[in-house]
Amino acid sequence: MNNFTFHTPTQYIFGRDAEMKAGEMSAKLLGKNILVVIGGGSVVRSGLLDRVFASLDAAGVAHSLLKGVKPNPTDRLVYEGIDIARRENITGILAVGGGSVIDTAKAVALGALYDGDFWDFYCGNAKPENALPVGTILTIPAAGSEGSGNSVITREADLRKLGVRTDSILRPLFSLMNPELTFTLPPEQTAAGIADMMAHIFERYMSPTANVELTDRISEGILKAIIEEAPKVMANPEDYDARANIMWSGTLAHNGVCGTGRVEDWACHGMEHELSALYDVTHGAGLAVLIPAWLAYMAQHAPAKPAQLARRVFNISEPDDTQAALLGMTALRNFFHSLSLPVTMAELGIENPDIPELVRRVLINKGEKFGGYYIIDADIAIQIYRLAL
Amino acid sequence: MNNFTFHTPTQYIFGRDAEMKAGEMSAKLLGKNILVVIGGGSVVRSGLLDRVFASLDAAGVAHSLLKGVKPNPTDRLVYEGIDIARRENITGILAVGGGSVIDTAKAVALGALYDGDFWDFYCGNAKPENALPVGTILTIPAAGSEGSGNSVITREADLRKLGVRTDSILRPLFSLMNPELTFTLPPEQTAAGIADMMAHIFERYMSPTANVELTDRISEGILKAIIEEAPKVMANPEDYDARANIMWSGTLAHNGVCGTGRVEDWACHGMEHELSALYDVTHGAGLAVLIPAWLAYMAQHAPAKPAQLARRVFNISEPDDTQAALLGMTALRNFFHSLSLPVTMAELGIENPDIPELVRRVLINKGEKFGGYYIIDADIAIQIYRLAL
Repeated sequence: MNNFTFHTPTQYIFGRDAEMKAGEMSAKLLGKNILVVIGGGSVVRSGLLDRVFASLDAAGVAHSLLKGVKPNPTDRLVYEGIDIARRENITGILAVGGGSVIDTAKAVALGALYDGDFWDFYCGNAKPENALPVGTILTIPAAGSEGSGNSVITREADLRKLGVRTDSILRPLFSLMNPELTFTLPPEQTAAGIADMMAHIFERYMSPTANVELTDRISEGILKAIIEEAPKVMANPEDYDARANIMWSGTLAHNGVCGTGRVEDWACHGMEHELSALYDVTHGAGLAVLIPAWLAYMAQHAPAKPAQLARRVFNISEPDDTQAALLGMTALRNFFHSLSLPVTMAELGIENPDIPELVRRVLINKGEKFGGYYIIDADIAIQIYRLAL
Repeated sequence: MNNFTFHTPTQYIFGRDAEMKAGEMSAKLLGKNILVVIGGGSVVRSGLLDRVFASLDAAGVAHSLLKGVKPNPTDRLVYEGIDIARRENITGILAVGGGSVIDTAKAVALGALYDGDFWDFYCGNAKPENALPVGTILTIPAAGSEGSGNSVITREADLRKLGVRTDSILRPLFSLMNPELTFTLPPEQTAAGIADMMAHIFERYMSPTANVELTDRISEGILKAIIEEAPKVMANPEDYDARANIMWSGTLAHNGVCGTGRVEDWACHGMEHELSALYDVTHGAGLAVLIPAWLAYMAQHAPAKPAQLARRVFNISEPDDTQAALLGMTALRNFFHSLSLPVTMAELGIENPDIPELVRRVLINKGEKFGGYYIIDADIAIQIYRLAL
């Protein structure tokens, strides 16, 4: 096991009516003049935003609004938010939505206290040392951003999609998590969120670090719970307990506990980010296509850990590692299919992907060689994208 | 799943040389004039205390010393610590040791800022609202106190052993965890620590709350990791990776993540506290005796969850719940035995326990009816103690 630091200061308030704590928690942790960040109209149409505003008003918290965050959020709205934050002397930021909204809020929180361009943090030219406090009200369980120190933003000018990762500076100070708010999610968004949270575990589980039995077992446990609960939320979107298990899984999948003490992988995320940037596909759907392709490659070249996954999570009893890994990959594909997720580029709606361009871009953003469990170069990246066709 | 709040602000620095951060972290989070709390002579003899003092001196942190904490720590040393804290205007407390030392440090941290008797918090007459900041350097993985908001103290006058539990006020602000510091633990202390951390998971896993698949699976995962790693540390006390897995398991077993969203049990802990108080046995060894007895009773009266445990953790394939639960109980007893832990009162060195007195005391401290998964009264408590003979 490698040395590590782990610091997760987020206060979670989880359950029915959690969003009613917006005023109290904002007053305590975000200050008296906050910026509320939202996406499209669903939080308006559902009445959630009105309830949040009422809670803030009752607590004496003034609020400005930044709206219009879209999936695969871009820098344009971040700059707009930073302008508001500076102009209005904003003391903290409350994100009401899913990962895109929260990641935008985090980018604004970083940029508002920084003299230069906030993009410096994303392209690696500056290291985050300070940010406005962020709170969240989660409506889409997927990205895990409600508990993570991470944020991913796409730059519109060149469609570079880059992430920043901090130990704790970008972790929300509080997250209000009411599973009922996820009852109305469209099935494809529920399913994509499930693939995303499973991917956050895969990317940590697929590690070259040996002797990490504890985090292996925790990772396998969360994956098993997701596999058990996912069909329930698809069959009955208002199954509170299943929604609650899925929502909390999304947080624990990405709060870092599964990665403590080990080198992580993140090759699939890197390769997916280019799919999302070029073809604007849903992140989770792109991952449902690329992870099985990655597993198919690894079954041939480094089957040990994929075989362990197959045996422990998918109950594959095959003794040969390569065969076990392939059977596990098939089981995962079947599981994704059962949620109506795409598992090929064609099913994702990309008939003729420009693989050379995808690879060119991934090497720019991830480096000539990337990955943790197995090192990927241009040739291997081409093969994995092809396995996803 | 029930509503919950979850807040774990402890900063963990885990790995080789972690203790060398004592000065830096204390200066940052405990202030410039701290009280160092230790137990017997092992941290002195090993040179650890000298290294810690050197680190504190280098960081300009002044330090007083409270020494002599014993297993099943009592109020006497807490009062002594509170006196020092007040007299010396102590700004924070650094515990260097295991659960007893950390629990004592937490009690001092509470009492130093309270006008009344610190015992008020333990017997339920006052609710903790404020405490001096606490940091830890962990040397015995067992109690999980390095990450928990809990503390357990025994009052010498009447041997009442009571705990206080907070959401986050008593959680250490930092914990420095170097698995190498556990290489020299005597085997019986290593084994008792393993039983204690497993018990912390059992007490949460055995819940009447339905539909908590995620925390069930995480609990089972940590248990499986402990069962895998425990024989390695017993066979080779200097197996760094196995020690690291066990050490981090002890933290995650008791930081609350296994209990999110569910009613917990804690009957075995309540019954064990009376064993420790009356017969001064090691807490973990007492739990290794009482948990199988509790499981044996439950196999007859409420076998569902014990059967799930047996099937998922001990790979029991028996279809009948009662039989499966009994086989799981036997597997657990065999596992404890394989670590040279006692599994009966006789093996614990208590030939003729005063069961009426044990039950009388447990009812005083836990109430006439206690437990979560299954409600225990005086009659049932007698039967469980008898099953442990």
